[in-house]
Amino acid sequence: MTIVRTVEAARTWAADRRRSGARLALVPTMGALHAGHLAHVQAARQRADAVALSVFVNPTQFGPGEDLERYPRDLDRDGALSAAAGVDLLFAPSPRDMYPGGQTGVAVDVGAVGTVLEGKHRPTHFRGVATVVCKLLAVFVPDIATFGQKDAQQVVVVRHVVREMLLPVEIVCIPTVRDPDGLALSSRNAYLTAEQRRAAPVLRRALLEAEAMVRAGERRGAAVEEVLRAVLSSERLAQTDYALAVSAEDLRPAVVLQGRILLVAAARFGATRLLDNTCLDVGPDGVSAALP
Amino acid sequence: MTIVRTVEAARTWAADRRRSGARLALVPTMGALHAGHLAHVQAARQRADAVALSVFVNPTQFGPGEDLERYPRDLDRDGALSAAAGVDLLFAPSPRDMYPGGQTGVAVDVGAVGTVLEGKHRPTHFRGVATVVCKLLAVFVPDIATFGQKDAQQVVVVRHVVREMLLPVEIVCIPTVRDPDGLALSSRNAYLTAEQRRAAPVLRRALLEAEAMVRAGERRGAAVEEVLRAVLSSERLAQTDYALAVSAEDLRPAVVLQGRILLVAAARFGATRLLDNTCLDVGPDGVSAALP
Repeated sequence: MTIVRTVEAARTWAADRRRSGARLALVPTMGALHAGHLAHVQAARQRADAVALSVFVNPTQFGPGEDLERYPRDLDRDGALSAAAGVDLLFAPSPRDMYPGGQTGVAVDVGAVGTVLEGKHRPTHFRGVATVVCKLLAVFVPDIATFGQKDAQQVVVVRHVVREMLLPVEIVCIPTVRDPDGLALSSRNAYLTAEQRRAAPVLRRALLEAEAMVRAGERRGAAVEEVLRAVLSSERLAQTDYALAVSAEDLRPAVVLQGRILLVAAARFGATRLLDNTCLDVGPDGVSAALP
Repeated sequence: MTIVRTVEAARTWAADRRRSGARLALVPTMGALHAGHLAHVQAARQRADAVALSVFVNPTQFGPGEDLERYPRDLDRDGALSAAAGVDLLFAPSPRDMYPGGQTGVAVDVGAVGTVLEGKHRPTHFRGVATVVCKLLAVFVPDIATFGQKDAQQVVVVRHVVREMLLPVEIVCIPTVRDPDGLALSSRNAYLTAEQRRAAPVLRRALLEAEAMVRAGERRGAAVEEVLRAVLSSERLAQTDYALAVSAEDLRPAVVLQGRILLVAAARFGATRLLDNTCLDVGPDGVSAALP
């Protein structure tokens, strides 16, 4: 595995691979790699000839008072895990590399899709995500890029940006990887106290209960949201930020559950904010699992 | 010359050229081609193996009440001129092709460099320019793209966006082409009445007089701006919007003329707004002509 730290070196590597006819995959991460990220690498290897993984804790997607400073960083460990998983290139740029003019300059506005759900709680978050993703795509010009289902709104926003900016890349959504008790893997799980960690699977339980209702025939968004909220509020340590049924296309409220829908929930456990979701295709003939 | 109307066809053409090892140039235009545009094509042919010219009257760079509707459009004439000039591909997309989600979606914010000069008078202009330029660059992934000196701030903004978004393209600035009386060629000159047309070269005269002062040793920005304004206000039909000396790097006011500077002026002749500029390298050993 090659490790590069500069945009120019990454660009040269990618251009060489493309010139030799290789199909290229990019796995953008903020590091602190876990089995969820490694599932991205595995999926990327199945779909491409060369896999680049980027490790960059992107400052512009953190709001004031968020966890930019304490976000876990361990490049040696990330490098070892990446190499073992079959990554061909690890790209670990500095903020100065990715933001040559500092962080007050050029940015990608994502429009309405970035103002709901997470965007309501983190108003500049998706602007930062879209900006860094466009930059990474400009450096690598990959055939595919992977994004995780856990951050379902991010998948929807990135697809929206890619389509609108006419970027020639396929966005592949990788299903959420979970701990045995159902908690979605996240680098932020490391912040949880033992007690909070025991409480956190309530997110998954709430979503599974809501999903069961939909599979049993419930089609009223409000009824499903009520159950989501009820299960979440049964857990003393969880503070619900939102628990909603929305369209997986444009994240608008799903008053009637129909087509591809997302049940999404965000809750705080102490200072740690966790997300989870389930995605369903609701058709006239029944309900099936889906990906955003 | 090939003519294509869709993003997909343009992308395929460009990918084929790149695959065969050709160096690719893009000449982005809003059509209504004149000798200024043809100088872009000539410069592009000297620097690349294949030249694409886009004709797209980009709606998002026009403000409310501006001339989007009446902007001159004549694709047959543009096609004939392009073919004669040696363009290999003419790309004439529809607004729907370039803005698949409509015009309220994803956009590129350019930061402070887009808020001064033209940006003060046309607050959403450079956001529209940057957005469409990023899209065109994503479709063609050219080695070079040409922009005209007449729109000097556009050159500065596009260079800024390209650097910040890590886009792998060289921006080539093409010197302004002028009518014999000094008026910079512009598709908008067609709006002028005969009387306004006779008055319009005052822009060039003002800039030449200011430039002569700098060449004669004047280094105070304010003194140069005063002369610019005085010459412009001597013309009854010209309403000055601004007449300034700025840094060609970041468009900040040039209090002391030093390094690469731009003398820029914008004036209205009736409802028609015209721009012009001169760019100078001001060094310890003298003054020489330059490009932004």
